[in-house]
Amino acid sequence: MKEISIFKIKQRVQRVFENAGLSFSDAEKITEVLLDAEMKGIRTHGFVRVKKYVDCIRKGGIRPSGDIKILSELPSWAVVDGEGGLGILIALNAVNLAIQKAKETGIGIVNVKNSHHLGPVGYYAAKCADEKMFGMAMSNGDVMLAATGSREKNIGNNPFAYSVPAGKYDKIIYDVAISMGSDMKIIQMGKEGKKVPPGWMVDKNGIPSDNPSDYLDGGVLLPFGGYKGYGLALMVEMFAGVLSGSHTTKDVHAWNQVPGETGGVGHFFMAIDISKMGDVKEYEMRIEGIIDDIKASEKAQGASEIFYPGEIEKNARAKCMESGTVLVDEAVLEEIFSL
Amino acid sequence: MKEISIFKIKQRVQRVFENAGLSFSDAEKITEVLLDAEMKGIRTHGFVRVKKYVDCIRKGGIRPSGDIKILSELPSWAVVDGEGGLGILIALNAVNLAIQKAKETGIGIVNVKNSHHLGPVGYYAAKCADEKMFGMAMSNGDVMLAATGSREKNIGNNPFAYSVPAGKYDKIIYDVAISMGSDMKIIQMGKEGKKVPPGWMVDKNGIPSDNPSDYLDGGVLLPFGGYKGYGLALMVEMFAGVLSGSHTTKDVHAWNQVPGETGGVGHFFMAIDISKMGDVKEYEMRIEGIIDDIKASEKAQGASEIFYPGEIEKNARAKCMESGTVLVDEAVLEEIFSL
Repeated sequence: MKEISIFKIKQRVQRVFENAGLSFSDAEKITEVLLDAEMKGIRTHGFVRVKKYVDCIRKGGIRPSGDIKILSELPSWAVVDGEGGLGILIALNAVNLAIQKAKETGIGIVNVKNSHHLGPVGYYAAKCADEKMFGMAMSNGDVMLAATGSREKNIGNNPFAYSVPAGKYDKIIYDVAISMGSDMKIIQMGKEGKKVPPGWMVDKNGIPSDNPSDYLDGGVLLPFGGYKGYGLALMVEMFAGVLSGSHTTKDVHAWNQVPGETGGVGHFFMAIDISKMGDVKEYEMRIEGIIDDIKASEKAQGASEIFYPGEIEKNARAKCMESGTVLVDEAVLEEIFSL
Repeated sequence: MKEISIFKIKQRVQRVFENAGLSFSDAEKITEVLLDAEMKGIRTHGFVRVKKYVDCIRKGGIRPSGDIKILSELPSWAVVDGEGGLGILIALNAVNLAIQKAKETGIGIVNVKNSHHLGPVGYYAAKCADEKMFGMAMSNGDVMLAATGSREKNIGNNPFAYSVPAGKYDKIIYDVAISMGSDMKIIQMGKEGKKVPPGWMVDKNGIPSDNPSDYLDGGVLLPFGGYKGYGLALMVEMFAGVLSGSHTTKDVHAWNQVPGETGGVGHFFMAIDISKMGDVKEYEMRIEGIIDDIKASEKAQGASEIFYPGEIEKNARAKCMESGTVLVDEAVLEEIFSL
C-alpha cells in the first residue's frame, strides 16, 4: 500500500475518465464515488475498478455516460433504462430521481434496467440519508454463489444497502454483498496456510469445506447465514432484476471477463422522505438513542468498541480527510498512472 | 405430536378467541393465520400462541380487536395506530391498506405503531403476492440478540419477509427471524448432548461457544451471518420501529413475560403493484424461469432437492390439506381444549 495525496489521485483518476470519453462533470462524479470507497477501505469497489471500467468503455461494453431514459412512470415509481451506460453514473441519476419523487410524494422507487456494475451500493442509499430520507439500494449481478442445497454458481453475489440519517452519528450505512466471505480472502488464506471459516464455501461436491485449495478446485462461495442469505440474494434478484426487466441470474454477463459486452444488470432504489410524516429531528434523535444504547452495551471479550453499520468506514474516511491522503494498492496506482 | 382434523382444531381455536371477546369474523381471521403457520411447520408461530394471546387479552395487554386508526396519510404511504390491539388482526388490516394504496398508485407503504406480536410475518408479505404484487413485511420486537462486538441482548430478533408471485410455483415466501438459531433448539441440543453450530451464540463473556450449557449460563443468541445479520436487525428497527413511532430495542416490552402490558411494537408493510408497470404474466414467467434454473442446478452431496424460499412450507401445507389433518404438539392441544 502507498500513501498518496487525495488531490493528486483524484485529479489523475478524473483525467483518466475524461480521456476515456466522459464529460468533465461525469468524470468528477465517478471519481468521487470511487475515492469515497477507497477512503472507507472498501477497496474492492475503489480505484481497482478504474482500469476495468475504462477497458469496458474502450471495448464498447459501456457507453461513457450515465443518462437514463424513463420507460414508464408513476408519481412514486419509475422504471428507467440505463442504455448500457456507466453503472455508477446511471445509479446516481436513478437515486436522484427516487429522491425527487420522494420529495413530491413521500416515497420514490426507481428501477433501472440495462445498467452496469454500480460500485458501492451503499453510496446511493447514503445519498438518501444525506437528504434526511430513509434509503434502500440493490443490484443484481452475475452468478457467483450456490443456492442452499446446490453446488454450482446459480445466483449473484447481489449487493444490498440501506441508509438512514442518524443525528450526531451522521448516518447508518449498511452495505453488504451476500457471500459470507470473498474469493480473494480465501485465496489469501491458502497462501497463509489458514483454514476457511465455517459457512464460507462448499467444495466441488457441495460439501462444506475449510480447505482453501478446495475453492480453487471447483468450490463455490456460500451466502451468509445459509438459506437465510440465499433468500436475500433471491430478493435482490426479484426487486432489482425482475422488476426492472433486466437480465437475471445466469443471463447476467460476467462483465469482468467480457469487457466488450454490455452488463445488463438491474437496480432498485427506494427513498422515503421522513419529513412528510413527522419531524426529522425527532426521528434522528430516536435513531441516535438506539445507537447510543447499542454502543453502551457490555462489550464482548476482545472487542474494543461496538460499531453501528458504516461507522468503521466513516472513521477510515475521516482519517483520510484529516491527513489529505489515502492508502492505495501500489499495483493499482501504477495501473492508474499508466492509463 | 398428535394428528387432529383441521376442521376440529379450527373450530376450537375460533371458539376460544370468540370467548376471549373477538368478533366471529376476527376470530376466524386470526385462526386462519395460526392454522396456516401450524400446517407449514412454523410451529413457533402457530397454535402455541393461542393461550399467550388469550392471556394478554384477559390481562388487558391486548385489546381484542384489530382496528387501525390512520394517523397520517399520503397516496402511497400511511402511518397507522394499532391502539394496543391484536397484532395479527392489525397486521392484516395494515397490509390490506398497503395493497389498496398500491392498487391506486403502484406503491403502498403502511407503518404501524402500538401493535403487538404479529405472528408469521411472511403471511402478510404473501397477501401481497396473492394480489400479484411484490410484498415486504417487517416487525421489531423485544431485545433478544447481541449486536456484533457486544455480549448482552440489545436488539430484537426482528422478523423480515418478502413475497413475490411465481406462476406455477405459486409464490416465493421468504420469512426469517434474524437469529442464526433459536433458544429452544439450543436447549434441545443440550438435552441430546449435541454441540451448538458455529455462529449461533456467545457465552456470557461474549466469546463464541458451542456448549449448550453456556447459553443457559448467560449466553446470548447471535444474528445470522455475524455483522451482516446485525445490520439487518437494525434495518427492521428503523423501518418498522422508528418510522412508525413505536417503541424500539430496549423499550419494547417482553410481552411474553408481561402479558398485562401493551406490546408497543411497530411494523412496516410494502406492496408494489407490478401490473402498473408491465404484464403480470411476463413477470411471473421470468420468476418461474429463475426458480427453474436454480432447482435444476447440480445438487450438493446429500441434498435431495434445491428449494426456493417457502417451498418446504408450501409442501407441508399441501400435505395437511390433502389429509384434512394437521400435526399439533399434544401439550398445545391440551392447552387449547382446556381454555
